[in-house]
Amino acid sequence: MNNYRLQQLDGFARAGELELNHGKIQTPVFMPVGTNGTVKGLTVEDLDSTGAQIILGNTYHLMLRPGDNLIRDLGGLHTFSNWHKPILTDSGGFQVWSLGQLAKVEEQGVHFKSPYDGKKIFMSPEDSMQIQNNLGSDIVMAFDECTPYPSTEIEAAASMELSMRWAKRSHSAHTSDNALFGIVQGGMFEHLRQQSLEQIMALDFNGIAIGGLSVGEPKDDKTRILKFLASLLPDNKPRYLMGVGKPEDLVEGVFFGIEMFDCVLPTRNARNGQFLTSFGELNIRNAKHKHSDKPIDENCDCKVCQNYSRAYLHHLDKTNEILGAILASYHNTYYYQQLMQQMRAAIFAGKFVNFAKDFYNNRKLDIPQFLED
Amino acid sequence: MNNYRLQQLDGFARAGELELNHGKIQTPVFMPVGTNGTVKGLTVEDLDSTGAQIILGNTYHLMLRPGDNLIRDLGGLHTFSNWHKPILTDSGGFQVWSLGQLAKVEEQGVHFKSPYDGKKIFMSPEDSMQIQNNLGSDIVMAFDECTPYPSTEIEAAASMELSMRWAKRSHSAHTSDNALFGIVQGGMFEHLRQQSLEQIMALDFNGIAIGGLSVGEPKDDKTRILKFLASLLPDNKPRYLMGVGKPEDLVEGVFFGIEMFDCVLPTRNARNGQFLTSFGELNIRNAKHKHSDKPIDENCDCKVCQNYSRAYLHHLDKTNEILGAILASYHNTYYYQQLMQQMRAAIFAGKFVNFAKDFYNNRKLDIPQFLED
Repeated sequence: MNNYRLQQLDGFARAGELELNHGKIQTPVFMPVGTNGTVKGLTVEDLDSTGAQIILGNTYHLMLRPGDNLIRDLGGLHTFSNWHKPILTDSGGFQVWSLGQLAKVEEQGVHFKSPYDGKKIFMSPEDSMQIQNNLGSDIVMAFDECTPYPSTEIEAAASMELSMRWAKRSHSAHTSDNALFGIVQGGMFEHLRQQSLEQIMALDFNGIAIGGLSVGEPKDDKTRILKFLASLLPDNKPRYLMGVGKPEDLVEGVFFGIEMFDCVLPTRNARNGQFLTSFGELNIRNAKHKHSDKPIDENCDCKVCQNYSRAYLHHLDKTNEILGAILASYHNTYYYQQLMQQMRAAIFAGKFVNFAKDFYNNRKLDIPQFLED
Repeated sequence: MNNYRLQQLDGFARAGELELNHGKIQTPVFMPVGTNGTVKGLTVEDLDSTGAQIILGNTYHLMLRPGDNLIRDLGGLHTFSNWHKPILTDSGGFQVWSLGQLAKVEEQGVHFKSPYDGKKIFMSPEDSMQIQNNLGSDIVMAFDECTPYPSTEIEAAASMELSMRWAKRSHSAHTSDNALFGIVQGGMFEHLRQQSLEQIMALDFNGIAIGGLSVGEPKDDKTRILKFLASLLPDNKPRYLMGVGKPEDLVEGVFFGIEMFDCVLPTRNARNGQFLTSFGELNIRNAKHKHSDKPIDENCDCKVCQNYSRAYLHHLDKTNEILGAILASYHNTYYYQQLMQQMRAAIFAGKFVNFAKDFYNNRKLDIPQFLED
């Protein structure tokens, strides 16, 4: 099932609703990442109470451990993990690509070795569709190659064209009633991005993802590509910026019409003692928090900020207590969900640019040029 | 505050109610251990929903990190940790004693070095009372020396007599309205245990603890001492067997009239993949669970057994996911609470011996002699 409805526009910024097999989600939306069938450090009850509407599962990790056939036999990833709201799965392509020299890309697909047992594995677009179907994903992603940064125009074109042939094969191989999203590639070259987008649009996917950004390129390049695509993306489909990002990246993305994001940052930073707040990052390992009875963020109404002092969270981190990771993961995930809800409200109020400027001001960051144009 | 009421006797087995500053607890009761101001792997919401009525805090750990003065300044351990039900604190003596050669015991108290910064620390009975008072404990434990096993009669007598002098000093130094429990020592010698108990009873503590058991002695010695004390302990005070133990140790303890227990076993075993069940231990790391859609324990109604397969829990353990430790800690803590509730119900029904025999039979363990006598 896949019914998308655009609810409100404010400049490029969009609020919408997407109906999936496991329920409706409101956009803009941030998807916490559940690599191994769990969002690290959070029970499903806690995850649910952060306001999370949909999570991301990693095809690559799950196919290797515990195996997608096992998950299918046990009722799919929702039953397996006890998360009964929507799940988007990536295609596995990005993680295989991240293996670098350990992976060999050819027309038919990708050869790589399992890092767990050294077993040789081949993965094609058709395999990726089958695996994601076994997982029971609500949103299946087309299999693609992430174009590296930097790449020459010739390299970026060849990579994008391979991804487009794989997009067609993904589309043909996808037979379930789950939503299927195509992925726009093309590196840092506008005309390649445009060609890619046209080919993706021609296949009538249920949503359009932008891949190959936040792969090490200068921030201005990312902004340039997002801006270029903003006016070309079709109105009747949700847009997803893959693997992004920091809070300010979410604000920028929403400004340019992006509705879906995913990133490990809130939970990974949490495990490293980094709390995300309305005034920027707070490192709980800093000795100045040892005696502080203040909450992490006085503007936050999450259960961590309502019930625990910085001193307690500092102590938990210092003593390597599991609860430290739990509470930090909770707060950061909650913070991301709150940020998305605030952006959605600002879009409905027609005040997204004001919201974005306040966001930067509260963090004592320069207002980016795109907000001033 | 400390109002104890014996509610039901069944042989030596006792059900009672103890009213403390932070609420009432029903006995027999198991206290999960919150060494660093958190029961490892559990949020307070989860801990509460296991049925936990009271937890134990470790004076030694908390005085070193983050420091008892800091906890006092932040409102006490309840506020600091957001656990608002009763807390019992140990005296710190046992952990200092566990340092072995690093600690030096003399009449006045114990000298030791902080394992964190090497700082020299001296701790007396009076210090222990002050620290536990700073923590805001509901039940303060007298400062004692745990008699090692093995000890000669002369060694055990000298150690017990030191603990009794410290018990008097603890009693004199305790000025708050929190409950204060005395500790019976005496090693494996009945007459020393009796002398110790008489001295403790003479001081009119609010409860009586049995220390120096489960320190490496043969099981029969523990049973012998518990049996010896069972008929001597006063009826009008709760009895606490310190640092115990496995499920079968709880059943034995309750049989001999013990009402309070504490142990790190349920949460420590959880982090090692050991689940405690109605049919014995289950090691989730065993490969046979990889494909199993069964719950950990079909007789358990906890949220883990209701919602997750052994295959998922095996997978979480295999991938070192925090959620694996969370769910295992939850189940094991819940299991202990259920066991205590079942024992309490059996006492009220006058069927404790039947319950205990069933308990051993379900685990395919031999029925111990004390149940046959």
